[in-house]
Amino acid sequence: MEKHILKYDKPFTFECGKTIGGLDICYHTGSQYSEDKKVIWICHALTANSNPEEWWNLLVGKDKFFDTEKYFIICVNMLGSCYGSSGPSSVDITAKDKNKSTNLYLLDFPEVSVRDIVEAHKIVKNHIGIKKIDLIIGGSIGGFQALEWSISEPDLFQYSVLIACNARVSPWGTAFNESQRMAILADNTFCEQKNIKGGEKGLEAARSTALLSYRSYEGYGITQKEENADTLFANKACSYQQYQGKKLSGRFDAYSYYYLSKSIDSHNVGRKRGGVENALSAVKAKTICIGIGSDVLFPVEEQKFLAKHIRNAEYFEITSQFGHDGFLLEWEQIQNILSKVCKF
Amino acid sequence: MEKHILKYDKPFTFECGKTIGGLDICYHTGSQYSEDKKVIWICHALTANSNPEEWWNLLVGKDKFFDTEKYFIICVNMLGSCYGSSGPSSVDITAKDKNKSTNLYLLDFPEVSVRDIVEAHKIVKNHIGIKKIDLIIGGSIGGFQALEWSISEPDLFQYSVLIACNARVSPWGTAFNESQRMAILADNTFCEQKNIKGGEKGLEAARSTALLSYRSYEGYGITQKEENADTLFANKACSYQQYQGKKLSGRFDAYSYYYLSKSIDSHNVGRKRGGVENALSAVKAKTICIGIGSDVLFPVEEQKFLAKHIRNAEYFEITSQFGHDGFLLEWEQIQNILSKVCKF
Repeated sequence: MEKHILKYDKPFTFECGKTIGGLDICYHTGSQYSEDKKVIWICHALTANSNPEEWWNLLVGKDKFFDTEKYFIICVNMLGSCYGSSGPSSVDITAKDKNKSTNLYLLDFPEVSVRDIVEAHKIVKNHIGIKKIDLIIGGSIGGFQALEWSISEPDLFQYSVLIACNARVSPWGTAFNESQRMAILADNTFCEQKNIKGGEKGLEAARSTALLSYRSYEGYGITQKEENADTLFANKACSYQQYQGKKLSGRFDAYSYYYLSKSIDSHNVGRKRGGVENALSAVKAKTICIGIGSDVLFPVEEQKFLAKHIRNAEYFEITSQFGHDGFLLEWEQIQNILSKVCKF
Repeated sequence: MEKHILKYDKPFTFECGKTIGGLDICYHTGSQYSEDKKVIWICHALTANSNPEEWWNLLVGKDKFFDTEKYFIICVNMLGSCYGSSGPSSVDITAKDKNKSTNLYLLDFPEVSVRDIVEAHKIVKNHIGIKKIDLIIGGSIGGFQALEWSISEPDLFQYSVLIACNARVSPWGTAFNESQRMAILADNTFCEQKNIKGGEKGLEAARSTALLSYRSYEGYGITQKEENADTLFANKACSYQQYQGKKLSGRFDAYSYYYLSKSIDSHNVGRKRGGVENALSAVKAKTICIGIGSDVLFPVEEQKFLAKHIRNAEYFEITSQFGHDGFLLEWEQIQNILSKVCKF
């Protein structure tokens, strides 16, 4: 897929009330847009980028289920992320006036909500001239975006596919997010804001905790089983957590992570819409709600709840030893469900 | 119960191979020891102290099931803890030679294993002159101690009660511990070791993560449900995590926490005993294994495994909306099981 940067030069006001002068919005497309092509809009999750050929590579690409040549496939990098769209890691032209040691926004970027992220998606949609989206799909915070948008522009979508997500962040989810933010804040280089590497160790600890919410007891039992029967201190799972922490800090910054973690905690489709049930009743798309049996972060009750309150919805459950991360890995089961339900 | 400090002035060698010149061992007893009294040995969990009248107050005390007047009840503060027994927060008489800004051990204390903790218990037992322990009981790392000791001195115990624990730390448990240690290490005041407050913010983040492993999605859904339908960012669960972090950092230090977290990762009854099953077969006590249905840190399969491999064992399951923390809170269900099984 091909990368684009849309330079939006009008003021953008966030849900928190703050305004910045303009936005960069980064997105990937699989082919040239034309009105006769079905439009597939893919929403990415927390630390992913706008190229699903990288992180959903068995589902998206030439000759894949989401065929980049047959359909017009698009994915927009979330506002607040560090993969091209505006966020804490972007250059702040007003930084000089703030007596900062960096020219980046860092903690001066406005707080980002899921609705802000969707508003940025709409700017891209209007820019390209898309009138109808045949299918929108996302897992986790990607599912939040798909659902928010299906509510705010209900006539736009034919199918909406919501995987391992919910209608409102759960207290359990928020507690996981807060634990991660506490780890980032415990790293005093984060608040010092000297440069983009601030909070790196905190980010690694945060990722280690996040991973536990994405996986399962069973999965760790299989992949991280201690090999030596006589070691004094268990070590294998420790190395793995550290490795995963470093892997993330090598490609992501603590500021963007902190902001996106907060954006998860903004997720509540019922906000100022008279509650969650009322908001869900606005969806007109044929909606496919997919739960993962082993998901401890978004238990299947949450996707069943969506299916119950969205009028034209169906619930499916997939199995995985990977817990929440199953939305990235169990592509074949997801594909089988979509093949059955989606008529195009 | 009454507090005692045993000053053990002989060298104590830890399982890691390091030796220190002596130990303080803090313990509480409910009454005067006499040979005609049944002996109940209570093992405490991670951040608790040696006074179960404080943290198991509905189960232990005058006229309670564990009647402090009827029985000789004893609980020893774990080696490595900061509640009176030797650990990283203890004075290191050799500190001067190390050019440190504090006179405490901090990270110079030897690494502590569950077996070291039990060896210190044995010193207290011998000091008092106890020949027979009628019942030993513990939950979580308290259960580790009860099990280790039931294996290393099998003739000592009539009943052994193992709640929400296992035979060897699971990769999942270690991953939770490592995430917490990463948060503590991300706080650079921890490694600076200037004083006992080092790593305080890291400890708060660690506690926040630990809490998630002790509780459940359902429990958070009930107790931390966001009250306002229209808040921009979920907040209630955040305040709760912060509150719990501060509550711990107000009474515990990051160094002791770090050490005890490592001691959990040392838990492996099979180490140098030809494996876990072989070690479990050594237990002679009538063993009561209690699992908690909602425990995500020590799933019930682990206690069923214990009951399967200990020859004279029985498995019971209790219910709780509190997950692993149920071992502290569901005292009535625990009491009912003990009343049924224990003949005294």
